[in-house]
Amino acid sequence: MTRLTFDISMSLDGFVAGPDPSLEDPLGVGGEALHEWAFAAQSWRERHGQAGGESNADSDVIAESLAATGAVVMGRRMFSGGSGPWEDDPKARGWWGDEPPFHVPVFVLTHHAREPLAMEGGTTFAFVTDGIEAALEQARAAAGGRDVAIAGGASAVQQYLRAGLVDTMQVHVAPMLLGSGTRLLDRLGDSPPGLELDRVIASAAVTHLRYRLAR
Amino acid sequence: MTRLTFDISMSLDGFVAGPDPSLEDPLGVGGEALHEWAFAAQSWRERHGQAGGESNADSDVIAESLAATGAVVMGRRMFSGGSGPWEDDPKARGWWGDEPPFHVPVFVLTHHAREPLAMEGGTTFAFVTDGIEAALEQARAAAGGRDVAIAGGASAVQQYLRAGLVDTMQVHVAPMLLGSGTRLLDRLGDSPPGLELDRVIASAAVTHLRYRLAR
Repeated sequence: MTRLTFDISMSLDGFVAGPDPSLEDPLGVGGEALHEWAFAAQSWRERHGQAGGESNADSDVIAESLAATGAVVMGRRMFSGGSGPWEDDPKARGWWGDEPPFHVPVFVLTHHAREPLAMEGGTTFAFVTDGIEAALEQARAAAGGRDVAIAGGASAVQQYLRAGLVDTMQVHVAPMLLGSGTRLLDRLGDSPPGLELDRVIASAAVTHLRYRLAR
Repeated sequence: MTRLTFDISMSLDGFVAGPDPSLEDPLGVGGEALHEWAFAAQSWRERHGQAGGESNADSDVIAESLAATGAVVMGRRMFSGGSGPWEDDPKARGWWGDEPPFHVPVFVLTHHAREPLAMEGGTTFAFVTDGIEAALEQARAAAGGRDVAIAGGASAVQQYLRAGLVDTMQVHVAPMLLGSGTRLLDRLGDSPPGLELDRVIASAAVTHLRYRLAR
């Protein structure tokens, strides 16, 4: 069975986005800085159609995750920043333009049914209205034996953690304090899953902490 | 000038104590487990009058901090778990018995004045009622050129961070999720200090992340 995992950048004080996210500033005030280490990495740039970048340990960590991922699940807000009916959503085709950087099947958690969307470069978006377990089941079937990655946002990650469905996770701890915003490891209930430290990779820019979760 | 620093164990979800702390369970439900890596370390055990323990990277990290510390500041709750007048506080001589493990001058932040307390083994407790800057000034004067360490709790750490007075910090990230309790890096205001990653030491039991703070 393929594993369910996630790879997310977090500030030392636990935030994955700063305060006041908007269409212009989807990661909130200061939130973009969480990803500076990735923007500088060769593997991230290549995946996003950009030349250059550093070929370093951080780039290797990203490349490893991309290679391991056969399908993606994400929350509605991660997909478009919107909510409610799709007709009213200015980003109803997602944030990423005609060729999103996933290149695998993506399953979007939503309360609003719609037909799947095939983008350039192999990314397909399917819209799942019957909950996180159904989305996971569809993603597993589409992953071709590779991992299913939760792309975010925090709420989707929290739902999968509370349901005890996550096998591994990698948190990229950015050396910064955001002070407020959206917390990643929040609302986990009274019995959060146990963790086992699996690997630590440290660079000057970020610390990659990987854990196995008790199932 | 001596540096102001702190060294605190935190769960991956940001807690330094679990829910429902009490006199019997001062670290709250599940909170003791944050410190298991330290309880197992030779240097921690020696400082607490216990034999044995492992001589490993974790033990070296503790020994390094102990050697660097010339004075300590702490909050009232860290000292006794209590609040209000000292006459009503069952732990008015602190948690640690006749020979506390500090062996340096300790400055306790409180609203309730009292005479200093000299304990066995070189620990003295002075009670500072005129705020965090006064406590820091007294601790610097007593530190003999070594560092001043904030022992905790979270509220004391947050006050010093908000005031921009912390020079370095080391967070020992324990591989666990507590789900609720007392957060360390919380209530930092709209402009928390900048961090620069200084050192990462990883063992199987814990990840030691050390940062310099922008002043």
